[in-house]
Amino acid sequence: MQKPSIPRGTRDFGPEQMAKRTYIFDTIRKTFQRFGFQPLETPTLENLSVLTGKYGEEGDQLLYKVLNSGNFLEGVDPADVEAGAKKLTFKIAEKGLRYDLTVPFARYVAMNRGELTFPFKRYQIQPVWRADRPQKGRYREFYQCDADVVGTDSLVCEAEIVAMLDEILTNLGLPDFCIKINNRKILSGIAEVIGVAGMESALFVAIDKLDKIGKEKVEEELREKGLSETSLRKLSPLFRPMTSSREALENLKDWLAHSQTGQKGIQELERLWKLVRQYGLNDKKLQLDTTLARGLSYYTGAIFEVKALQADGTPVQIGSISGGGRYDNLTAAFGVPGLSGVGISLGVDRIYDVMEELKLFPENAAITTQVLLTNFDADSESVALPLLHRLRTAGHNAELYPDAAKLKKQLDYADRKQIPYVVLIGPDERAVGKVTLKDMTSGEQSLVTAEEVLEKLS
Amino acid sequence: MQKPSIPRGTRDFGPEQMAKRTYIFDTIRKTFQRFGFQPLETPTLENLSVLTGKYGEEGDQLLYKVLNSGNFLEGVDPADVEAGAKKLTFKIAEKGLRYDLTVPFARYVAMNRGELTFPFKRYQIQPVWRADRPQKGRYREFYQCDADVVGTDSLVCEAEIVAMLDEILTNLGLPDFCIKINNRKILSGIAEVIGVAGMESALFVAIDKLDKIGKEKVEEELREKGLSETSLRKLSPLFRPMTSSREALENLKDWLAHSQTGQKGIQELERLWKLVRQYGLNDKKLQLDTTLARGLSYYTGAIFEVKALQADGTPVQIGSISGGGRYDNLTAAFGVPGLSGVGISLGVDRIYDVMEELKLFPENAAITTQVLLTNFDADSESVALPLLHRLRTAGHNAELYPDAAKLKKQLDYADRKQIPYVVLIGPDERAVGKVTLKDMTSGEQSLVTAEEVLEKLS
Repeated sequence: MQKPSIPRGTRDFGPEQMAKRTYIFDTIRKTFQRFGFQPLETPTLENLSVLTGKYGEEGDQLLYKVLNSGNFLEGVDPADVEAGAKKLTFKIAEKGLRYDLTVPFARYVAMNRGELTFPFKRYQIQPVWRADRPQKGRYREFYQCDADVVGTDSLVCEAEIVAMLDEILTNLGLPDFCIKINNRKILSGIAEVIGVAGMESALFVAIDKLDKIGKEKVEEELREKGLSETSLRKLSPLFRPMTSSREALENLKDWLAHSQTGQKGIQELERLWKLVRQYGLNDKKLQLDTTLARGLSYYTGAIFEVKALQADGTPVQIGSISGGGRYDNLTAAFGVPGLSGVGISLGVDRIYDVMEELKLFPENAAITTQVLLTNFDADSESVALPLLHRLRTAGHNAELYPDAAKLKKQLDYADRKQIPYVVLIGPDERAVGKVTLKDMTSGEQSLVTAEEVLEKLS
Repeated sequence: MQKPSIPRGTRDFGPEQMAKRTYIFDTIRKTFQRFGFQPLETPTLENLSVLTGKYGEEGDQLLYKVLNSGNFLEGVDPADVEAGAKKLTFKIAEKGLRYDLTVPFARYVAMNRGELTFPFKRYQIQPVWRADRPQKGRYREFYQCDADVVGTDSLVCEAEIVAMLDEILTNLGLPDFCIKINNRKILSGIAEVIGVAGMESALFVAIDKLDKIGKEKVEEELREKGLSETSLRKLSPLFRPMTSSREALENLKDWLAHSQTGQKGIQELERLWKLVRQYGLNDKKLQLDTTLARGLSYYTGAIFEVKALQADGTPVQIGSISGGGRYDNLTAAFGVPGLSGVGISLGVDRIYDVMEELKLFPENAAITTQVLLTNFDADSESVALPLLHRLRTAGHNAELYPDAAKLKKQLDYADRKQIPYVVLIGPDERAVGKVTLKDMTSGEQSLVTAEEVLEKLS
């Protein structure tokens, strides 16, 4: 006999967690729809030819690969076995598990471009898998909620993302949050003016760590990567503390005066700010962070990242709860160049943790029964069953305790399942054609008719 | 450059299919909740030690196995490689993909039995994976919707399943359907009275094919399996056509008069019928089918199977849309014996196909935008953005076309996305502080205020 377990980094979600997660998913989904995004779901299994090479070398290693079915060794050259796991993998595994929602989306757009209406706005809420080392807040199987629009380079889309994040996080009840924004063109401009054009990636991988390791260690890393003292000196405006996004923007205007790309980035940011204000949002939640790079990866324009804040403005000690940006070449790998898009991804697990920490879940989030009919014998069943049917037809979640158990056991059941009302049907009640309705919160009981039960529950 | 594709037997669900599938899922979920079932989700990845040996030898072969991450060949004996794929599998793959929702549910109950409230009623709506040969209506990745109750052997639960199926299928708009029912004890009783007690499995695997291959071929198969002519003769009441469940039940009473187990099965069925009638359901949809076995597998009591029917009562040519039954030992494999349960599983893909064939999806099932604001230039944007915000705040799905494209292109976009209303904001409109509201169905246009747009949409 085996002791059952689940794989490390995976989780079961019981009724209570499901209720809370459903609350988050529903809030996000509703807002995505309110902004004109339509649902898409792609398969969990993708061909490895679609997935590999899209997430960098590290990502390739974190992909879960699925063994070909049947005799997967058939036709495999013994030399491939001897060549080791890395080489053998692609001989015995053709499929892998979805690693994120962006590449499958790009694959979908490339495959269906003839039938899609552009600009194509889709949202996607599905789990993804990464063979990463599990740790607090990091799982091997977790959900992402993405919304992207492709087929337009209009900055209205960036403004819409800000508005959408604002609506979602406000509706979830977060006391405060900060939408950090940057632009890849600013990053390119900075690389240009400090004389290391084309080295953006090395530059910003180091700068991304500023929060964690501090300015001096960042500079040390940059020296190691070959930055001259002149370049480092020219980089100093990046570390200057700014009191506002406006001030940071003015600072950039001077600093990047001689970079055309940098100026373009500044213009885009200014226009985005204007659109956000026209929409009617408080633009204080939007914060320019010129060190924000999010690994650069495929971003070509705006870069977003969201942090949850406590009511007093201090950050909740949980990483970013959302991130995204604009990309110009997402579908190029699948033979469809020239489609610009912008998107955002929300991390449900982190949002869940923030909401737990700040106690933001509504108390009655439980998905449960409204009324339990108790069961004493076949006679009480004959009264309970038609009443059960009436209650459900009227739209109430109702159940009949299946066994003629002791009353205490049945009331315990109602209690543990957080069922607010219990109906008791004993011989006394049957004699007068009524039932006893018990309010589980107050403990009050009253002898009432079936109609009165229905009334009470509405 | 690669031509992207998805694995055989998997599917993308675009906006239109998602809307229809969501409609089915929501209907099922609502009813599950109405009957007091609570949500559960288990991981896609399960340990192979949990999955193997639970679905028979064929099932083990259909399990998708996930390659261990990192250097999966490390520590593997070359002899294991030479021993072939079957032996090697368990050395290089510890995890697999969920094959159904029942075994993970049993695993969850066994792992959490200390904290659960029994009887435990859970529903689960998640995809499962089978490395089966894909064909029409059979996929490698597909959804199941299960509801089970464990921790009670009350027949009220069987009656609830009938009521639940009735509510779901009626709410989905199916013109007619037939809930076939049988009882494992009847099957055991039949085996007993024809003198092949203990051979139920062989007996009913053959009888299960009655619909497909006919009585003579079934008898042939049974002869091959070693049934004597006497046994076959005694089996003849099974093939006698019955005009009603009542008649079939009376027939059984005589036939199984000398089998205690058989009599118990008959009593259970009679009580179930009574409960269903007490609940207030039309019991004509419930049909006793003494040949129904569903591969027997783990069923110990009731066995269910649902067929969709056309309005005239003829079956829709699609396999069963739901199946289930009672089991007494589901969690025993995980060290928790003695928990009786009963459950039902709905096949969303088949229900989808039935609804498509019978044209049952509501016309306005699309998840889409209610109103599109057109975009001519920055000036129209400055009017559109605050209106957009107001529309969404009032709960409407609204979007602004992101680019100042030609009007025809924008109207085409609205048309293809099935957006019913379009708001036009040109210089004439701005001059009088109004907008033009176009009804995309009738083509009518009218010059109105923002308030009137909001009113029209409510």
